[in-house]
Amino acid sequence: MKIAQVAPLAESVPPQLYGGTERVVAFLTNELVRLGHDVTLFASADSDTSGHLVPAWPRALRLDGTCRDSLIPHFLLLEEVAQRAAEFDVIHFHTGPLHFPLARRLPTAHLTTLHGRLDMPELQPFFDEFKDIPVVSISRAQQSPLPQAGWIGTVHHGLPLDLLTFEDGPGEYLAFIGRISPEKRVDRAIAIATACGIPLKIAAKVDPADREYYERDIEHLLDNPLVEYIGEIGEAQKPNFLGGAMALLFPIDWPEPFGLVMIEALACGTPVVAFRGGSVAEVLVDGVTGFIVESIDDAIRATREVGRLDRRRCRAVFERRYSVTRMATDYVALYEEMIAQAASGRALHGVA
Amino acid sequence: MKIAQVAPLAESVPPQLYGGTERVVAFLTNELVRLGHDVTLFASADSDTSGHLVPAWPRALRLDGTCRDSLIPHFLLLEEVAQRAAEFDVIHFHTGPLHFPLARRLPTAHLTTLHGRLDMPELQPFFDEFKDIPVVSISRAQQSPLPQAGWIGTVHHGLPLDLLTFEDGPGEYLAFIGRISPEKRVDRAIAIATACGIPLKIAAKVDPADREYYERDIEHLLDNPLVEYIGEIGEAQKPNFLGGAMALLFPIDWPEPFGLVMIEALACGTPVVAFRGGSVAEVLVDGVTGFIVESIDDAIRATREVGRLDRRRCRAVFERRYSVTRMATDYVALYEEMIAQAASGRALHGVA
Repeated sequence: MKIAQVAPLAESVPPQLYGGTERVVAFLTNELVRLGHDVTLFASADSDTSGHLVPAWPRALRLDGTCRDSLIPHFLLLEEVAQRAAEFDVIHFHTGPLHFPLARRLPTAHLTTLHGRLDMPELQPFFDEFKDIPVVSISRAQQSPLPQAGWIGTVHHGLPLDLLTFEDGPGEYLAFIGRISPEKRVDRAIAIATACGIPLKIAAKVDPADREYYERDIEHLLDNPLVEYIGEIGEAQKPNFLGGAMALLFPIDWPEPFGLVMIEALACGTPVVAFRGGSVAEVLVDGVTGFIVESIDDAIRATREVGRLDRRRCRAVFERRYSVTRMATDYVALYEEMIAQAASGRALHGVA
Repeated sequence: MKIAQVAPLAESVPPQLYGGTERVVAFLTNELVRLGHDVTLFASADSDTSGHLVPAWPRALRLDGTCRDSLIPHFLLLEEVAQRAAEFDVIHFHTGPLHFPLARRLPTAHLTTLHGRLDMPELQPFFDEFKDIPVVSISRAQQSPLPQAGWIGTVHHGLPLDLLTFEDGPGEYLAFIGRISPEKRVDRAIAIATACGIPLKIAAKVDPADREYYERDIEHLLDNPLVEYIGEIGEAQKPNFLGGAMALLFPIDWPEPFGLVMIEALACGTPVVAFRGGSVAEVLVDGVTGFIVESIDDAIRATREVGRLDRRRCRAVFERRYSVTRMATDYVALYEEMIAQAASGRALHGVA
């Protein structure tokens, strides 16, 4: 199958820094190549892929100080995709809704994975209009604000099996990883760890937009003998950090679209104590790969129990449900569906 | 002629607050209607026009706290334009380069007025790609960074003749109007007024992005007995403010694309002392409607002389060169050109 993958340009594929979408596109592209497909990746020129790279902009925009308006490079990217559309059997977009006006006018089969939260009010009239664009969610929960969208399925993310290795554990600390932001609620993680008397290691970055929140609500909480704040960590440090933990705390307070870090933890055999919300109830098996909780008190009780969960089963669930092969195979099935639909559309309209 | 005007959604047409583009679209639309054309205005629903209003979003985005991503409403606006394109002889876009990917695929004649500065590096490859989109500049100088763009002409802005009335003057103060920003250089205006010993009235707003600059570089300069800072003024206060002045100081330090306030001053008979840059040398007649200067010393000499310029000639030049009728007539000529080109394109390709 001739497949185009269209990545956003904010980060390279894979990203040098944080960038969940670009990481998933990297894993998916390489796996599709490994499965024998002919894959072309439209992405920033500093990307690295086993597919054919079409360098749509000289470097990832987050590292490109010369570009003030990030729309301009994305429009160039999408124009190149549109002009080469006939070369592909299917085009897989990861560029949010940026390409919808163009995608609607493409003769080629296409689908779009929506990677972000979808509860903003301006999206209601937008998806009323663009309900013909085939879209894929990364959790079923992510679809709920937009029942009118052209959903064709849900594909949970997957990771290469050898990306993170199993650690026997059980680990002597709790782990928190992510941004310091009101959605991620590191304050809850600190409260839980403190109540349980278990050390908490926090691997997190503070975005400029969250600086004020950090200084006002979080910084003073870090002055706690149980808490170790280690700043942002790279891919290389993740296996030790997650694998060495007794559990990952995921005390979110927003509709998490997927939450890659949950399956990264499971890959290491580390169970997850997560607040219910967004994708959590789909990704975790309550009582097997972690505990799903509704309150701080619940979370404290769950954290005291979590060491008893079987880390080998966490890894086994990861391997069965969250491998990159499962993700790529799911997408190939949707590609086939879209290709068949496009062909029957062309037949209906009398085009060869 | 059946004409569509497509305005940005940041402000209503005309704007309730600052918004040069939306003001010009309002003047142009009403004048085209007055000249007998059938004009449809795509704009926010709180707009007010003598044309047919297509309300593309419930309210101006700058006043709409519910919308986080301003692209989404603009994509809906442009989709509606695209779907109704066949109803019009010509479509006139004012939406920056947002619509270029769609406009390229429209069957209808169209042109785009570019209202902003064009010297950002990311625009080079963008206009290399989109050189087929017919674009109009608001000054000849504005074109210079992008010789490769599809320029079809320059149309200077124009104003209704009765918007601002002639004041005999000569006025006893200097006026500055605009944003407090490093591009507008109110510090130069203060230095000039102080050296001349003439009072300076500053009508200006401080955008959040310029707050730090204001506090660091400007605020202490306002503590000067010759300087009166009166904050932001509305349309209703402009005639008195500009008409009562001896001269407008326009000491810019950036490639000003047009500079509406210069022709607003001329409409009142008030000459302009302006630093050379961008449109200035096109808009002003040096020694007649003001003085074009290169340095603070030049500006001080010019300001001492400016009271001797003939205010009636300033108004006469305004009426001849900067009326809304002249602007609308210029655009109609370009509309005719684009309509003829589209027709010959259709004939070439054998489409009726």
